Amino acid sequence: MSLTKKQYDDAQQRALELFYKASIILTNQEKANLEVADFGLNKLNEMGLEIITYVNTERCCAKEMVLFSKQICPEHCHPSIDGNPGKEETFRCRYGEVYLYVEGAPTSKIKAILPQGHEKWFTVFHELILHPGEQYTLSPNTLHWFQAGPNGAVVSEFSTKSRDESDIFTDLGIKRIPEIQ
Amino acid sequence: MSLTKKQYDDAQQRALELFYKASIILTNQEKANLEVADFGLNKLNEMGLEIITYVNTERCCAKEMVLFSKQICPEHCHPSIDGNPGKEETFRCRYGEVYLYVEGAPTSKIKAILPQGHEKWFTVFHELILHPGEQYTLSPNTLHWFQAGPNGAVVSEFSTKSRDESDIFTDLGIKRIPEIQ
Repeated sequence: MSLTKKQYDDAQQRALELFYKASIILTNQEKANLEVADFGLNKLNEMGLEIITYVNTERCCAKEMVLFSKQICPEHCHPSIDGNPGKEETFRCRYGEVYLYVEGAPTSKIKAILPQGHEKWFTVFHELILHPGEQYTLSPNTLHWFQAGPNGAVVSEFSTKSRDESDIFTDLGIKRIPEIQ
Repeated sequence: MSLTKKQYDDAQQRALELFYKASIILTNQEKANLEVADFGLNKLNEMGLEIITYVNTERCCAKEMVLFSKQICPEHCHPSIDGNPGKEETFRCRYGEVYLYVEGAPTSKIKAILPQGHEKWFTVFHELILHPGEQYTLSPNTLHWFQAGPNGAVVSEFSTKSRDESDIFTDLGIKRIPEIQ
């Protein structure tokens, strides 16, 4: 099952409200093209991501992303492709709070809350908490996932080329490219 | 002659005020490290740039820049280095107004005002005007320069690796790496 047109439009509006709170100025075209990714899970409020891609060339990429309150971007990594190293990305929190999980020593009591029935698709638990102005740079091919705090979050991403269709998700049921009914 | 410590500190404060107006949230460390570049010209109010570098790895770079009212970043390009193509960069206006000049058909009546005595160091006049939310992606090795409108400007830069020391300026008297007295 995939998102209905109404679910998609509503999510766009909610994302635009968070961009507004973060004082991120967008063109009308960017607003119209705002991507809502539910990863084919049909649990958008729990797992999903709202994305504006500013630029994505062969060499570099910049995006502005929204997470709704407690929304999770599911665990994944960016593998090498055709002999090129995988995507390297820096997340910079602009608004709200982001709980970011990467490979490394697991944090004993994490702040994130996992969606019921999906716990097994989360395997890395080294926690980093990002407040506005704080950022973290991920090495290529590193497993990671992240969740917004209670007020949602706005996150800038600075990276090498994005090839979303090549991302490897831990949850084998995920479809990264969204379908709209 | 180079900037005095007081000139440098004052410029940092003025840049922070513009970042505040643009609702850009910075850490204390970023504020302390804010770079003031006068290009060795000692005409900071006319020609200079204030820069916070978020990240600059071998593969990609993101910066947040301030231009004071009518301040110019002088004409330059980013050449190929060691067989790698030059820096590719996207400028995104976040606050104020930016007049950007690149190679191409010269605009007949440009909005920028050139600093007296320095006119000969400006040779490209194809004008692009960027308002908040608007952006432009420059190809590598393209001559370009830019000036803020009357209220100053805040500009995000998304790019491949920055090698400021390798930039080629049209004005042969320019020293990109600043000296502080």
